[in-house]
Amino acid sequence: MTKKFVIGHKNPDTDSVVSAIVFSKYLKNGSIPAIAGELNRETRFVLDFLKGKKPKILKKAPVNSQFYLVDHGGLEQSIPGINSEDILGVVDHHQMFGLTTVEPLFYRTEVLGSTSTLLAKMFKEKGWKIDKKSAGLLLSGIISDTLNFTSKTTTTEDKKIAKELVIISGINIKELAQKMFDAKSDISGMSIREIVLSDYKEYKHLGKKIGIGVFETVSTTPFKGKDEKILKILGDIKKESKADFVFFGLIDILKKETFFYLLSDKEDGICKKAFGVSGKDVIVLKGITSRKKQLVPYIFKSI
Amino acid sequence: MTKKFVIGHKNPDTDSVVSAIVFSKYLKNGSIPAIAGELNRETRFVLDFLKGKKPKILKKAPVNSQFYLVDHGGLEQSIPGINSEDILGVVDHHQMFGLTTVEPLFYRTEVLGSTSTLLAKMFKEKGWKIDKKSAGLLLSGIISDTLNFTSKTTTTEDKKIAKELVIISGINIKELAQKMFDAKSDISGMSIREIVLSDYKEYKHLGKKIGIGVFETVSTTPFKGKDEKILKILGDIKKESKADFVFFGLIDILKKETFFYLLSDKEDGICKKAFGVSGKDVIVLKGITSRKKQLVPYIFKSI
Repeated sequence: MTKKFVIGHKNPDTDSVVSAIVFSKYLKNGSIPAIAGELNRETRFVLDFLKGKKPKILKKAPVNSQFYLVDHGGLEQSIPGINSEDILGVVDHHQMFGLTTVEPLFYRTEVLGSTSTLLAKMFKEKGWKIDKKSAGLLLSGIISDTLNFTSKTTTTEDKKIAKELVIISGINIKELAQKMFDAKSDISGMSIREIVLSDYKEYKHLGKKIGIGVFETVSTTPFKGKDEKILKILGDIKKESKADFVFFGLIDILKKETFFYLLSDKEDGICKKAFGVSGKDVIVLKGITSRKKQLVPYIFKSI
Repeated sequence: MTKKFVIGHKNPDTDSVVSAIVFSKYLKNGSIPAIAGELNRETRFVLDFLKGKKPKILKKAPVNSQFYLVDHGGLEQSIPGINSEDILGVVDHHQMFGLTTVEPLFYRTEVLGSTSTLLAKMFKEKGWKIDKKSAGLLLSGIISDTLNFTSKTTTTEDKKIAKELVIISGINIKELAQKMFDAKSDISGMSIREIVLSDYKEYKHLGKKIGIGVFETVSTTPFKGKDEKILKILGDIKKESKADFVFFGLIDILKKETFFYLLSDKEDGICKKAFGVSGKDVIVLKGITSRKKQLVPYIFKSI
């Protein structure tokens, strides 16, 4: 029998995980929430805190399975084995990744700070109540993706929906955000490679393969003196993944700036074109905290 | 100054025209409804009947313009000169055509009989009233695309929304459908070429260019003895458009069957694979009335 899964992108972040859980409830058709890899520390904290069940990990698509994709709309960032004819629906807030299908499907993406915001909207549109736990999960997704409403991707709709979710969930948003950021910033026991790959996405643009990893933190102190190591790891990743360009951005959430690591002259050239800033090894991009809105579009235009 | 347009696909049909008009009202941002070519007879009748204003014709994208696409979601079927970065939003009910964008946008498609149905839904979700004229226009879009609820693409949601639009518009649906079909079937003064091209769409699939024209009618009598002429015209279109395959389907709405014209052995081969039916020049496909649901997917799978 065909099983239906709701799943987010590879290297799952909080928004993609909570979206999978809540969209499966919305669908009311027995769809099973799943995740495309291990939870990061922030998401682990969120599920512990809200007593949410950890979804099943799927490393590849099982035989006879169909999928609802959340928080991504193309196959590049999906687990291996999903074909476009296996996709039943998409709920997302990213750009379009060239998905082609033979038959019509449900596809919805909007310019919002998180997929969680869109899901909350969809419940409202149906006139359905959001249960307390789901409200907490969606609120966490919004806080995570908008960096507690400080990211450039934040919209007035995100803020409005979050206020409503606060009322339903009874959560103290300041406290939750603080705890999430602490969990996110906790790198104890993590290798540099784990950090660089913890939120790494691969894109294809104009025939080029581009890898962009980011790590969001409330303190960059633990990274002092680690530049050389980070660049070495980036070089390894570039070789292994046969990427044309790889970048890593260490995002300081509080100072609102990004330490941007440039592996070689090739990456530096792109960076110069994209941001008008050039340098060796690592540069600081002031005011830049969003991969989606402030990094990807400019890097794409500079390829 | 940048102008914003709402526009449907080339060879506009009723659903694409009324969707452009009503979505521009929904947006409330000064967007101008436009059409990608001359109105067909059915749509002309609808606009006359409902005292709707004929939208501006755009044969190509003006300088400094941005677009909301309705009833199509890719650039293949858009007017020339629209680039993906000029697209502000999409409302559709077709398959995904591989749209790629650099930035997030509003994109919404659902498995419904018409784009008009989705637009009516969007008004309801916002809690906004649909005005009487818009209700009539959307009702016409639904009737047109679902062949008055007889096409395989018809969903229970189309029927439900149509009932609500009947109440708002005060329209007698049976009478409107009859008049629309009569207008649609009126071929007086039309050349065979005009008929074949009146609802012709081009697709790209697996590197092949496929043209599929359909003509819906309540009576195929005027086409008796015209097979040779139709095939000659199809041959001309294939040459001019450098298509790999071209098909023309004369759809008998009442008998629910399609006379399917096969230009050469190449088209016949596809048809045999797609429908298990083979023949010379023209064959009858029983029960087939929908290009989107019953022709395109099967033809794509047989390429």
